[in-house]
Amino acid sequence: MKKIAVLTSGGDAPGMNAAIRAVVRKGIFEGLEVCGIFNGYQGLIDGKIEPLSAGSVGDIIQRGGTMLRSSRCPEFKTERGRERALDQLRERGIEGLVVIGGDGSFRGALELSKAGFPCVGVPATIDNDINGTDYTLGFDTALNTVIDAIDKIRDTATSHERTFIVEVMGRDAGDLALWAGVAGGAETILIPERPYDLGEIVSRLQQGKDRGKKHSILIVAEGVMGGQELAAGLMDDAGIETRVSVLGHIQRGGTPSGRDRVLASRFGARAVEALLAGRAGVAVGMREHAVIDYPLAEVFDGGDAKDLGLYDLSKELSI
Amino acid sequence: MKKIAVLTSGGDAPGMNAAIRAVVRKGIFEGLEVCGIFNGYQGLIDGKIEPLSAGSVGDIIQRGGTMLRSSRCPEFKTERGRERALDQLRERGIEGLVVIGGDGSFRGALELSKAGFPCVGVPATIDNDINGTDYTLGFDTALNTVIDAIDKIRDTATSHERTFIVEVMGRDAGDLALWAGVAGGAETILIPERPYDLGEIVSRLQQGKDRGKKHSILIVAEGVMGGQELAAGLMDDAGIETRVSVLGHIQRGGTPSGRDRVLASRFGARAVEALLAGRAGVAVGMREHAVIDYPLAEVFDGGDAKDLGLYDLSKELSI
Amino acid sequence: MKKIAVLTSGGDAPGMNAAIRAVVRKGIFEGLEVCGIFNGYQGLIDGKIEPLSAGSVGDIIQRGGTMLRSSRCPEFKTERGRERALDQLRERGIEGLVVIGGDGSFRGALELSKAGFPCVGVPATIDNDINGTDYTLGFDTALNTVIDAIDKIRDTATSHERTFIVEVMGRDAGDLALWAGVAGGAETILIPERPYDLGEIVSRLQQGKDRGKKHSILIVAEGVMGGQELAAGLMDDAGIETRVSVLGHIQRGGTPSGRDRVLASRFGARAVEALLAGRAGVAVGMREHAVIDYPLAEVFDGGDAKDLGLYDLSKELSI
Amino acid sequence: MKKIAVLTSGGDAPGMNAAIRAVVRKGIFEGLEVCGIFNGYQGLIDGKIEPLSAGSVGDIIQRGGTMLRSSRCPEFKTERGRERALDQLRERGIEGLVVIGGDGSFRGALELSKAGFPCVGVPATIDNDINGTDYTLGFDTALNTVIDAIDKIRDTATSHERTFIVEVMGRDAGDLALWAGVAGGAETILIPERPYDLGEIVSRLQQGKDRGKKHSILIVAEGVMGGQELAAGLMDDAGIETRVSVLGHIQRGGTPSGRDRVLASRFGARAVEALLAGRAGVAVGMREHAVIDYPLAEVFDGGDAKDLGLYDLSKELSI
Repeated sequence: MKKIAVLTSGGDAPGMNAAIRAVVRKGIFEGLEVCGIFNGYQGLIDGKIEPLSAGSVGDIIQRGGTMLRSSRCPEFKTERGRERALDQLRERGIEGLVVIGGDGSFRGALELSKAGFPCVGVPATIDNDINGTDYTLGFDTALNTVIDAIDKIRDTATSHERTFIVEVMGRDAGDLALWAGVAGGAETILIPERPYDLGEIVSRLQQGKDRGKKHSILIVAEGVMGGQELAAGLMDDAGIETRVSVLGHIQRGGTPSGRDRVLASRFGARAVEALLAGRAGVAVGMREHAVIDYPLAEVFDGGDAKDLGLYDLSKELSI
Repeated sequence: MKKIAVLTSGGDAPGMNAAIRAVVRKGIFEGLEVCGIFNGYQGLIDGKIEPLSAGSVGDIIQRGGTMLRSSRCPEFKTERGRERALDQLRERGIEGLVVIGGDGSFRGALELSKAGFPCVGVPATIDNDINGTDYTLGFDTALNTVIDAIDKIRDTATSHERTFIVEVMGRDAGDLALWAGVAGGAETILIPERPYDLGEIVSRLQQGKDRGKKHSILIVAEGVMGGQELAAGLMDDAGIETRVSVLGHIQRGGTPSGRDRVLASRFGARAVEALLAGRAGVAVGMREHAVIDYPLAEVFDGGDAKDLGLYDLSKELSI
Repeated sequence: MKKIAVLTSGGDAPGMNAAIRAVVRKGIFEGLEVCGIFNGYQGLIDGKIEPLSAGSVGDIIQRGGTMLRSSRCPEFKTERGRERALDQLRERGIEGLVVIGGDGSFRGALELSKAGFPCVGVPATIDNDINGTDYTLGFDTALNTVIDAIDKIRDTATSHERTFIVEVMGRDAGDLALWAGVAGGAETILIPERPYDLGEIVSRLQQGKDRGKKHSILIVAEGVMGGQELAAGLMDDAGIETRVSVLGHIQRGGTPSGRDRVLASRFGARAVEALLAGRAGVAVGMREHAVIDYPLAEVFDGGDAKDLGLYDLSKELSI
Repeated sequence: MKKIAVLTSGGDAPGMNAAIRAVVRKGIFEGLEVCGIFNGYQGLIDGKIEPLSAGSVGDIIQRGGTMLRSSRCPEFKTERGRERALDQLRERGIEGLVVIGGDGSFRGALELSKAGFPCVGVPATIDNDINGTDYTLGFDTALNTVIDAIDKIRDTATSHERTFIVEVMGRDAGDLALWAGVAGGAETILIPERPYDLGEIVSRLQQGKDRGKKHSILIVAEGVMGGQELAAGLMDDAGIETRVSVLGHIQRGGTPSGRDRVLASRFGARAVEALLAGRAGVAVGMREHAVIDYPLAEVFDGGDAKDLGLYDLSKELSI
């Protein structure tokens, strides 16, 4: 293998740039040429491909977003689109591809791999919802962004003795809401992986009030329902007045945390190693404190039961 | 004067604690006893009043919110309510009151002053909307919170080549949106003090696109309209797709900036000086780079025309 | 077991307060009384012990330092001192003790355990140097503090095309320097676990310069040598001018990161569980992504060989 | 005037990039061509000059350091050096120059102006030590960096009941130390503008201890003496043990605060206006809350007596 390429796809996540840097530098260290593909799979189809030097990825490890940009690409979901992509790669003598993104992006990588082109996926999404890895790039940074917001909101909640609802991202996954809720000292946390009972929430709020707790923070994962919907429910069912804060897109950006930068460096390097070792059609990941790679197919296989011990702990600590 | 009291009222703002600390310590330095009134005017009516020592305000200068808490108090708007408040003050031998808050809070202070009880107002609101002072406590911190959010959102806007709308607080005032827009490098800023033209916004976006600018950030002050409303307008009128981020309550909290802590220290000390000098019924403020005090009535007198040179500058720099 | 106590000892670390909160709330949840011991082992000997309620640890999860304070205690290293400590515990009917601190603090806990008093250690130190656990409380926060400093210093290094040396804490361990160096994109990292060669550093700097790299950041762990010493060496040996930044005590403080708060919550709860299950003389820790507890003696047994793969990676990525 | 240029010189300060952006965009808005000079006066002599477009200064408003870089230039202090610089400017048809930097940089601008070449200075230094302007670019950001460090150090000071000395930058000026000391709630502040008395410091520390204050923070401006020197003095004179933190270069970097970005935008635009209006040999500044320009010579004229009311206030509030 003499030439590889790297692209970012799907929603951006802090640490993508650090991963691009690692792929490029590790590749060059191993004697490879490395190309950057701009605008994700769409750019691949359109041939927006340029060689990257060690210097071209300098001073990006600390930046949010992705210097290669990202975009949606319906065309890539068609066989015709993927054929055009493969043509672009072959034309340039590119022999391996690193795809940095979430599970939607990994599906594309799996398809290319099935078509015989060596691909490796690097999991990057603040949602931490990719089967087979304990952590995805961006999750740690987003966690810190969310708890910073909760800390700020708590200032007002305490000063005004109010109940706040904070809506947190995560698509169908509750990890970000759960970790942020525990770290933020939230009184109640709602995640899609667990059923909730409005009556129980109301009675917890009431009990807190009876014990003299005059403010309260509820975290709701967007996968459960919107913050406004929960507020309406609490008002309708129990006459409880709340304020809602929908954190929104600030959760996706920002300079990556130390943890995310180190993880990105490891993931990027491992992806190059996997390509060089001929292990294609794999994703890199973190499992039991070790960097590994594993078949991309596992990402789409139902998924192992998540450990939700943290959820139970959150209830015990918010008494 | 031997005994004074301090309360916080209205929406909380970063720097309130630093101002409380300054009132208490300056008061004690001048040989006064200083009491803290909890829960704003309601707490004053209810007699939630406690003596504060120099040590009791230690380690609060860096905290958001207000240790004295705040609340709304419809009762204080009645003469009967204010009579009860005055009774509480007189009973305890309190001879002067420092009110830290926004213009609603200042109205109460003005009423008490008219009734013969010496009051001084310390302007604290992230909205920076109090006539007679160039800056209010909390504005600088909120500005930094908003630009931090804009910086994060720009990561995503750039990576995905999208247009974002960021809705910023400020009630009827545009200062926070305007400053944050300039500091955040926003392409368009909408503030209540200036008319806007949807057609012009659309054509600016279009021109930017034509010049190769693939992402854009629009700041809209809540006093103009909601972010979602603007998004709907752009979609309906011109088919322009945008994402909306409503920053919400995170803007009110957080550890105060250096500027706000210094301002709070000066304002708090000046309030005590004004009381001691017999200048009651005044607000403290910052004017032409100097700490001053001026009649509370000026706060409610229409207001001087604001300098909106910064608005014009924002247009010139966002080309 | 009906009554337990908790203390913090040794250098403070972000997350100690979150761990105290977890011990107290988990203890109360399990039906225990929980006491706080102030000022570490010295306070234990002196009987500075007070009951803690669920509310008394509210609003501390986000604070650096330790509300229980800490101190050195030579007296506790004597049998007589430990006897007095045990008397204090027995007098109050305390049947178990959670010690939050570093390995020096754990030695005390081990001695008490040997004397028959059930103790559990919670590892808290920014140095990440406790055998048997992959992470200690405070390491993640310190990592973020250090990379924030490196990011700032890089602004100046780039603007002035200079070489900077950043001295990072860690006592005899290189983890903080190594992780921060990788995350900060440092050109060279010196850690105690690996020999260094001044000549090699000089030639790397020279090679970088030849390739057009006009600035450079060197990270040196305090366990290797002081930053000033390294600067003198580079000047004397090769006439290379550098600037030195000794980060110092800012690395120990600050609001804990999300990761540290979650870890602290888990560690604190696990410590209570271990006491209740009769597993005394243990430390809690994180191993292979799971919270565990293990014999305190393992902490002092030479220590497993550390995985220094990250060190090799740092060299490959800083080309 | 059809073509102007901009350079940064001296120590870097947060906000320099925002000022460059404002000069470039305001210039283009006014119909001018704008060139960037790299590496300060040295680059001017060497002809490192390139045209800048509106897009070339995009996405820099939030970055620390200076994209134009900076350097020392002894040659420019000679007439021969300045002649070569003027040749470079004339050759390219450049008719005006904006110099962003501190007073050393302004001296160069004054010399060029005297030689007949129109120059305008934009004050940028974290030291806030330029006569004629209330604020310089970078001061506000550095203030926030320093108080963030003080907040962190206070965590340890409180937890261990220790006295810390924090050494703050500022060359011969005490503004940064004074503001940071007030905002950080420091117990003692030493600035070059005021004499200090070691005996008084000792007795303040002692009084604090007697009142139960177990920790203390002393801020010392580098213009007074080094932190280690003060520590040695306290130890030798009174046996008081302290820890020292020298904040160093982190104070110069970092993403600029909102205030500094707005100030930079105003200053940069005003500099272009001054050139266009034919007011050369001036500096821009902030005076009595207004953006002004004034003769560069005033910068070097002894300097008005500074208002040190804040110093007196700091003593009253740290009781």
